[in-house]
Amino acid sequence: MSDRIYTAGLVIIGDEILSGRTHDKNIAQIATWLQVQGIRLAEVRVVPDVIARIVEAVNALREANDYLFTTGGIGPTHDDITVDAVAEALGVPVIVHPEAKAMLERYYKSIDKELTEARLRMARVPEGAELIPNRMSGAPGIKIGNMHLMAGVPHITAGMLDALTGTLEGGAPLLSETIGCWTPESEVSEILREVEKAHENCQIGSYPFFREGRVGANFVIRSTDRDALNSCVDTLCEALGEEGLDFTPGGI
Amino acid sequence: MSDRIYTAGLVIIGDEILSGRTHDKNIAQIATWLQVQGIRLAEVRVVPDVIARIVEAVNALREANDYLFTTGGIGPTHDDITVDAVAEALGVPVIVHPEAKAMLERYYKSIDKELTEARLRMARVPEGAELIPNRMSGAPGIKIGNMHLMAGVPHITAGMLDALTGTLEGGAPLLSETIGCWTPESEVSEILREVEKAHENCQIGSYPFFREGRVGANFVIRSTDRDALNSCVDTLCEALGEEGLDFTPGGI
Repeated sequence: MSDRIYTAGLVIIGDEILSGRTHDKNIAQIATWLQVQGIRLAEVRVVPDVIARIVEAVNALREANDYLFTTGGIGPTHDDITVDAVAEALGVPVIVHPEAKAMLERYYKSIDKELTEARLRMARVPEGAELIPNRMSGAPGIKIGNMHLMAGVPHITAGMLDALTGTLEGGAPLLSETIGCWTPESEVSEILREVEKAHENCQIGSYPFFREGRVGANFVIRSTDRDALNSCVDTLCEALGEEGLDFTPGGI
Repeated sequence: MSDRIYTAGLVIIGDEILSGRTHDKNIAQIATWLQVQGIRLAEVRVVPDVIARIVEAVNALREANDYLFTTGGIGPTHDDITVDAVAEALGVPVIVHPEAKAMLERYYKSIDKELTEARLRMARVPEGAELIPNRMSGAPGIKIGNMHLMAGVPHITAGMLDALTGTLEGGAPLLSETIGCWTPESEVSEILREVEKAHENCQIGSYPFFREGRVGANFVIRSTDRDALNSCVDTLCEALGEEGLDFTPGGI
């Protein structure tokens, strides 16, 4: 396992997210999956179904990160333009992938339907691409260079992530521990700052909440180093205890 | 009401979203609120708690849009760096806002607490800023230029949006109608394409789903023109009917 940090960018393509109609579930799903692969999600952009805007986001994030993922826009309808946008970003033509076409033929035959012109759209890929299997519906995701083009419907995205599990090189996973405390975070901000400063391989995030009529906060300590993480957790618990505060390891 | 389209960018600041720990609720909440104001959400970026990354995203989206919103990073702890980042993006110093300080003094007095140095951090603003009232906790949001810096906790964000309701100039709201159909979208993609082409002021989005063991799709027609929208809906319903498909106005 190397010390190098691997990062990914995510481009979510879809007017339905920007209109507020659909609540995004893919950011959290992909972020959680990436953590397990030892890859950090470094930035997400949500862009509309407009080729130029997709090209811009894809080019910015594929160059800045080890990996790029996209969700949305790879279906059979006229608003599915991700393949065209990525081909444009790479300066390559769009082709029909023979294996994808064969997969779609088998799939539609198995459910006694025809492979229409519209369905064949789902076999279009930027030239040079490989396929990402999709157990859910026969229409594959697409891998080209450091990019992974996936479906927007979360359970289909999940199937594609499953197919990619263990195939991407990552680094040490980012470990985290949470400590919850029924205190306004402003009461303990000095403690948090000092404990973080004393543990240079750890970051502490403070996430306030309001529940059951009371305020509290969860403090999340993150590190790739298990020993540093444990030491930071111990120091923080000790400091909170000295203030007479009730804290809950594992979070509230 | 003008024909001009007003757009907004949104920068979500927070390691907790990028780690997958917290599921974002602000994209949908803000997108929905903006629709009502006659403003379109044109792009969202989720960036980590790193000044340079926040500056880059803020500068890109404030210049490309009529409005910019940020969520997260305006609390009292060491990881709250949004004010510093926005001040850097604008090239102005950070100052303590006298009115924000007075608000915090009143608030903490009312709950019998002291205004500590940490809490006073929440009165820091980029020079030239105004305040956005926050009924929930006393700590205000911040308005500077075309930017609105809001809390990350969704119910506090909601209070700040409420305070801004009706204060931003917008255009004609984007209207939408949904038609649901128990059909694979690939069966009707040609219809969707043709109906959209015949109604130039309308966009049709197709959003497939898998429920109750069957596949279907919702078709969302969007337009700022009520007559064009109605005509497009009628044409699409007629075309679906001619195919012998069962469709449900209002969506499934």
